[in-house]
Amino acid sequence: MTRIPLETSVLSEIRPTESDRSHLAGVARMLVEAVNESGRAGGMVVGSVARNTFIRGDKDLDIFLLFDPDLPREVLEDEGLTLARRIAERFGTSFREKYAEHPYINASIDGLDVDLVPCYRVADAGAIRSAVDRTPFHTRYVIDRIDGWTDDVLLAKQFAKGGGVYGSDQMTGGFSGYLCELLVLYYRGFRPLLSAASEWRPGTLIDPESHAGKTFSDPLVVIDPVDPCRNVSASVSLSRMFEFVELARGYLEQPDRFFFFPPEEAPFSRDDFIGEILARKTAVYAILLPTPPYIEDIVVPQLRKSADAISSLLGRNGFTVVQAAACMNEDQSMLFFEILTDELPPVKSHDGPPLWSGQNARKFFDKYLDKEKNRLFSGPFIRDGRYVVELPREYRTARMLLGSEEVLGTGLGKHVKLSLAPGWVLLSGGECWRAEFSGFLKNALKKSSPLVRIRRALSPHRQPGQK
Amino acid sequence: MTRIPLETSVLSEIRPTESDRSHLAGVARMLVEAVNESGRAGGMVVGSVARNTFIRGDKDLDIFLLFDPDLPREVLEDEGLTLARRIAERFGTSFREKYAEHPYINASIDGLDVDLVPCYRVADAGAIRSAVDRTPFHTRYVIDRIDGWTDDVLLAKQFAKGGGVYGSDQMTGGFSGYLCELLVLYYRGFRPLLSAASEWRPGTLIDPESHAGKTFSDPLVVIDPVDPCRNVSASVSLSRMFEFVELARGYLEQPDRFFFFPPEEAPFSRDDFIGEILARKTAVYAILLPTPPYIEDIVVPQLRKSADAISSLLGRNGFTVVQAAACMNEDQSMLFFEILTDELPPVKSHDGPPLWSGQNARKFFDKYLDKEKNRLFSGPFIRDGRYVVELPREYRTARMLLGSEEVLGTGLGKHVKLSLAPGWVLLSGGECWRAEFSGFLKNALKKSSPLVRIRRALSPHRQPGQK
Repeated sequence: MTRIPLETSVLSEIRPTESDRSHLAGVARMLVEAVNESGRAGGMVVGSVARNTFIRGDKDLDIFLLFDPDLPREVLEDEGLTLARRIAERFGTSFREKYAEHPYINASIDGLDVDLVPCYRVADAGAIRSAVDRTPFHTRYVIDRIDGWTDDVLLAKQFAKGGGVYGSDQMTGGFSGYLCELLVLYYRGFRPLLSAASEWRPGTLIDPESHAGKTFSDPLVVIDPVDPCRNVSASVSLSRMFEFVELARGYLEQPDRFFFFPPEEAPFSRDDFIGEILARKTAVYAILLPTPPYIEDIVVPQLRKSADAISSLLGRNGFTVVQAAACMNEDQSMLFFEILTDELPPVKSHDGPPLWSGQNARKFFDKYLDKEKNRLFSGPFIRDGRYVVELPREYRTARMLLGSEEVLGTGLGKHVKLSLAPGWVLLSGGECWRAEFSGFLKNALKKSSPLVRIRRALSPHRQPGQK
Repeated sequence: MTRIPLETSVLSEIRPTESDRSHLAGVARMLVEAVNESGRAGGMVVGSVARNTFIRGDKDLDIFLLFDPDLPREVLEDEGLTLARRIAERFGTSFREKYAEHPYINASIDGLDVDLVPCYRVADAGAIRSAVDRTPFHTRYVIDRIDGWTDDVLLAKQFAKGGGVYGSDQMTGGFSGYLCELLVLYYRGFRPLLSAASEWRPGTLIDPESHAGKTFSDPLVVIDPVDPCRNVSASVSLSRMFEFVELARGYLEQPDRFFFFPPEEAPFSRDDFIGEILARKTAVYAILLPTPPYIEDIVVPQLRKSADAISSLLGRNGFTVVQAAACMNEDQSMLFFEILTDELPPVKSHDGPPLWSGQNARKFFDKYLDKEKNRLFSGPFIRDGRYVVELPREYRTARMLLGSEEVLGTGLGKHVKLSLAPGWVLLSGGECWRAEFSGFLKNALKKSSPLVRIRRALSPHRQPGQK
């Protein structure tokens, strides 16, 4: 594969130095030996360090503690955590317990961010008992095939990072490191991957081992080589997938360093925010809540579900929602709503049952026959075979609705509901701006695709009217 | 069939008097003889007078001039019209030419409103050459079966009139006289009809001769006994059908004179109108146009189509349309729009092509890359795999949009478009009220079903909170 000078130059910046490698390898060897010495579990380096696909400056090291699969789950969790904690105490400067499907230990050891993860040493990937048991198989699969492709993987990962589509976490919804590796191996190189991606359509299926055991409805489907029933790119959203497509097309047409190291984002101050909402003249609201004490993978989908549910509530009450978005930060989370018109007239149409649903129609008629009691504007009348009345609107402003108990009655995520139950802070207009949410709010009001940002940064002095 | 005293009493008011009958019969005989004397056509009384199902005070008389089916169509129209005109001149005080599928003469003769309609005397209903040729067959079918059911038909027709659902014209979308006759004959009486109607559902099929030659998607289907491929109730809208259902249920439960002779409607003055719109606080607009010079059956559907098209135009531009309605009067017609919020913020979201439509996506990207030139609020960004930009809104008020040329560019009815082309009067708020449209405007803002009007008139002093 010919490498253009830009890529050679980028590689020279991102390829780990020999001292990086030996430092990581040294710490890894020390920790694996400590696991093995315990006599209870086998130590294994997994992740990009094991695969030699880490980028210069990466400080992440994943050490797995492989236990006998005959151990009961509680014993594994208990023993595994004890051993991991002992190692962290012995070598690290600090550590804490974290949770995915199982508890594990995250420790700071010799300047590195080390995860010590207990799992089962199962015979094959079909016998896994939890998701972490699959990781050693991924590592072995990639190690067996990575020779000669390391640089391509580094470029692909840095390209995805630069474009903001790297990371399978819920907030990003992008491409994991393992996915980047599989794509480079499948298409045989960084540039062939970009060429192929330029033509991707929703539902594109990639099955390196031709062993798919299931169909998936995700936008991009990459069947896990070690598990026929798993989609490695399940986390990739339609938007992230096509941001990658857009970047691939843009890079092939006009490669630039900005694709790997994006132009710096201008900050978004309170004044910037106020300027935007004054120009847009829409109504903006934010609900601020304490972040529920669970991992991002649980909280973020709940925040999104809650934003959607409240958005539907607004819609049912006649408000046109321009956008609804959610952001999780360490301590506080934000649900953000932009509404076309903030105040609605007092009349609201209310559809009743169809006339051919005799009993229901009768009840509706009886209920609404009294015009004064129901404060009717009109009706009951028959429209398209259904009873309809025009009633006083309960919530004439979005502020009234978003401050009401109705919010709790809608389909909120479970933990979000608990967080909101004691009451919530409702912000509006310029008040919505908070320093810790400025990036999120900028993205809400000043969105642009990654390629747009790059292209605009490349011709910042373009004059109006100039092509 | 037992007759309750109310019905007996109503019948005594609506059954034609002997002098009505002999007057109508006399004029009819005189006109039929005049047609026969011409030697060119045969005269025939059709309609409710022929079937003896007319209501006291009815002044309508339909005389058909049956010509030889071998005559070419132009000769029929020419000769038929000449003969009809000669008869109208000889017996009438005034007359004018009208058009349905063919031209005919409408004359005022001896205090009656007489239609003189040329048609073909075809051998059977399957051989008709235009819709009017079918009428003699309807008349013969009903005459052969009406004995003993006349009073029931009179009650059914008066019931439909009282409820506002009588008339197959486009504005009403209700039950024709022939349809009332068929329904009474099919269900064997007025009350059996009401009992059956109480259970009607959309798509109810009635086929008196069990010879349906076609399926129909209309809400109510009554196969014409003289034509297996015609739905006699094609004109009945879903709303009118279920207003009839509602009235039938209400009458069976609690019969009242109001079902036949509805309570008087309060007038709707300019002040009433202004009071309503001030209470509703919505924005109302009316487009006033000269009524296109065609019959109601052509103009009314075009007015409705135009109102719908303009309603969609408003929707596409971000305005929430509460209702759109049309009314045709002799000289002027009105398109009426009620809008939730009159003024919108300057930002408007504009969806572009999906990214997998490569060429289109590229064009969109190139067009909108320049932010200043396009006065973008944000974008292009990728949402659900599609490019989106936020642009300045072209029409921030409904008034601007409804006054713009965009109105002519939308799917207006052909003749309505011609009427609007030289320009139109756009009214807003209280200006919309016009004396000749007061009934229409009242129905727009103070709609209620026929049964609601009756029940409210029956307990006008109901107190709030009283059941």
